[in-house]
Amino acid sequence: MVYKHHVPSLDRLIHELKKWPGVGPRSANRWANWLLRTSKVEIQQLRQALKDIKTNIKKCPGCFTLTEEEKLCYLCDSPTRKKDIICIVEEPFDIAHIEASGKFKGQYHVLHGALSPLNKVTPEDLTLGPLMDKIRKGQIKEVILALDADMEGDITALYIGKMMKNYHVKVSRLAHGIPFGGDIDYIDEQTLGRALENRVEI
Amino acid sequence: MVYKHHVPSLDRLIHELKKWPGVGPRSANRWANWLLRTSKVEIQQLRQALKDIKTNIKKCPGCFTLTEEEKLCYLCDSPTRKKDIICIVEEPFDIAHIEASGKFKGQYHVLHGALSPLNKVTPEDLTLGPLMDKIRKGQIKEVILALDADMEGDITALYIGKMMKNYHVKVSRLAHGIPFGGDIDYIDEQTLGRALENRVEI
Repeated sequence: MVYKHHVPSLDRLIHELKKWPGVGPRSANRWANWLLRTSKVEIQQLRQALKDIKTNIKKCPGCFTLTEEEKLCYLCDSPTRKKDIICIVEEPFDIAHIEASGKFKGQYHVLHGALSPLNKVTPEDLTLGPLMDKIRKGQIKEVILALDADMEGDITALYIGKMMKNYHVKVSRLAHGIPFGGDIDYIDEQTLGRALENRVEI
Repeated sequence: MVYKHHVPSLDRLIHELKKWPGVGPRSANRWANWLLRTSKVEIQQLRQALKDIKTNIKKCPGCFTLTEEEKLCYLCDSPTRKKDIICIVEEPFDIAHIEASGKFKGQYHVLHGALSPLNKVTPEDLTLGPLMDKIRKGQIKEVILALDADMEGDITALYIGKMMKNYHVKVSRLAHGIPFGGDIDYIDEQTLGRALENRVEI
């Protein structure tokens, strides 16, 4: 289904919205209609926010997450968070998820990707150098790998595990298993296999 | 679920996206992430399109749909479309739907709403005056009401039908019934009721 309004700026807006992941012509059309009725002030706020994400955001020199702070991000700068435990994530957006769980109160380190022979992502493309600098300083006791549960995540976990072998650092990875509320009938075999391997005594 | 990135312009963008109809925190978060990785050029195109819909679009003086043309819209201006039949719609966006069906080759008239005693939409709020001006000129032979199948649409259809009673104009309304591909088991009773009332001989 293609909606063509023959109103150039409207058709251009719909064309731009359809580029977004998971957005089809029907949704793009609906939102263009909504945006058309929205006040100029609201549109200006949206336009400003779009501009700001491209101009204001940079990487934290401590953990490489996204920040607008002049020096360290709010996580690296926090005096109450543990300094001797690092949670390693692939992307900055992963941090908000882990923070929402409320179960981790240490430092983060963002790799900005995962090793992938297929997509030619090599160790040099990730922030592994600065990570090893932190480890060499000797103040890190534990590293938690919060990587995606896919092939890239597995390769990256293996690689980091090897890199840290000669240092006195405890390295662990997030548990893989049945999700909370998950029905065993509906779990795929790979998840079920990992849940069996990683079974815990009660 | 609330994702808080503690990156003000990012959180602002997510806040703006969550205002859109049917967009929850998960989608807003996903698109903010995608927009963050999109090129500056792409973002600028989106910002320009958002600006343009607020500055370039006006109402066609003929049918009151949205247009960027100096005089009449491309539909009113078309030399090949029939001049003696008008399809009346509630909103400009309805036209693209009807055009997509390819079954109508006449003129349109956009009411910009429907009568609603509840929401205090009166005949004066709609473009009924200019519609009657067209009818009085005597060149219109047929009027098709393509209004929504709800209470407001019913009231508006009734009102327009009465207004046109004293003119030699054939007035009809879009057929209500079972949608194409519809399974009778799953059709609601109101639709089924109307489909029975409007049954056609074969």
